[in-house]
Amino acid sequence: MTAVAETAVVLLSGGMDSAVCLAWALREGFRCVTLSFDYGQRHRLELASAQQVAEALGVPAADRRVVPLPRVFSGSALTGELEVPLDRPEEAIGREIPPTYVPARNLVFLALAAAVAEPLGARHLVIGVNALDYSGYPDCRPEFLAAFERAARLGTRTELSVHAPLVHRGKADIVRLGLALGVPFDRTTSCYLGVRPACGRCDACRLRLKGFREAGVPDPIPYAVPVD
Amino acid sequence: MTAVAETAVVLLSGGMDSAVCLAWALREGFRCVTLSFDYGQRHRLELASAQQVAEALGVPAADRRVVPLPRVFSGSALTGELEVPLDRPEEAIGREIPPTYVPARNLVFLALAAAVAEPLGARHLVIGVNALDYSGYPDCRPEFLAAFERAARLGTRTELSVHAPLVHRGKADIVRLGLALGVPFDRTTSCYLGVRPACGRCDACRLRLKGFREAGVPDPIPYAVPVD
Repeated sequence: MTAVAETAVVLLSGGMDSAVCLAWALREGFRCVTLSFDYGQRHRLELASAQQVAEALGVPAADRRVVPLPRVFSGSALTGELEVPLDRPEEAIGREIPPTYVPARNLVFLALAAAVAEPLGARHLVIGVNALDYSGYPDCRPEFLAAFERAARLGTRTELSVHAPLVHRGKADIVRLGLALGVPFDRTTSCYLGVRPACGRCDACRLRLKGFREAGVPDPIPYAVPVD
Repeated sequence: MTAVAETAVVLLSGGMDSAVCLAWALREGFRCVTLSFDYGQRHRLELASAQQVAEALGVPAADRRVVPLPRVFSGSALTGELEVPLDRPEEAIGREIPPTYVPARNLVFLALAAAVAEPLGARHLVIGVNALDYSGYPDCRPEFLAAFERAARLGTRTELSVHAPLVHRGKADIVRLGLALGVPFDRTTSCYLGVRPACGRCDACRLRLKGFREAGVPDPIPYAVPVD
């Protein structure tokens, strides 16, 4: 008798954190269904990265879902209404909620993941938030995830579990974990401006570069500015 | 100096409960932005009702939003994968979760309402669930709403409040409140089959008819079968 793998719905943006989460979930033995959202983000380039990452990690095409959302998100630098801040001092990042915050984004993404999971018989949701080297978003905090899990259990007939394997890891630690798990970092996209080569100046680029620098390995993606 | 009305995002399906909620919120003095979802429901007819109800109650066209969702919901009689149960005994309704349950629907709708609310500066979400004369859905229970409110507050930068003014009311009570508030019940659509005249046999029709019967007033919409 073969044990049937449990299914996990993995939120996959195409950035480095969600890529590491997918590799983590696969190593945990889950059958992974990836869920990516086209929500009018400035950095839509990440959607192609999500597909490439999932393919490289062996997720079948039928289990890689891209959901086009209508314009429900607004009021953010990532949806075009505000400017993406550049060249902020590293120590300023995460201190306050920046204009790249997208109102209720992870709340919506997790809710949609629950809607996809339940008919699949999946009891596991995986999200790549981290609350250490992060941009300061409220929906990346562990207390939000715990509250969401409770709401999702009460609002569905499934005992859903929300897994955030990176929530207490710094970026360097995430880089090291990803390398150990064979994550194709060269295919990931983090830049908030959605340009390639990456800008190297937005918070996402700077946190990413900090992670690789502290891990002592080069970031394999090209940047438009010299990076150390 | 004129006091500026607070804004509420009101989930408006086009059924009788959400119509009463909208009238309630308007009477409370909120500026109301209505949110209706086209999610592939069998009873899409309700979307036209939602527009007519909101218009009749004086909500400007610019504040009546209809959001088309891709196929994220499945596994339900309301999305076409299962049969809608008909002619169930009244006492059986609400005893267990019926096939018309749509996985994670109110979780997704409330999350999207939060995403719409925050950039508007709206701190109030209104939802027409009730947990007395209801179909037995987990996402209609007050404990779910409380858990969602907590998650929404933690996951956004807004102290959102979820209002469910009907949650402890029976259907007859909802009918009476609606009549007092001038709700145009003749424009509402409840039937799960999405037919007009209404089928009179699905749980939604039966609960609605029970409400009008117990309130001692005739239901103004036509039915395909004789109703008392």
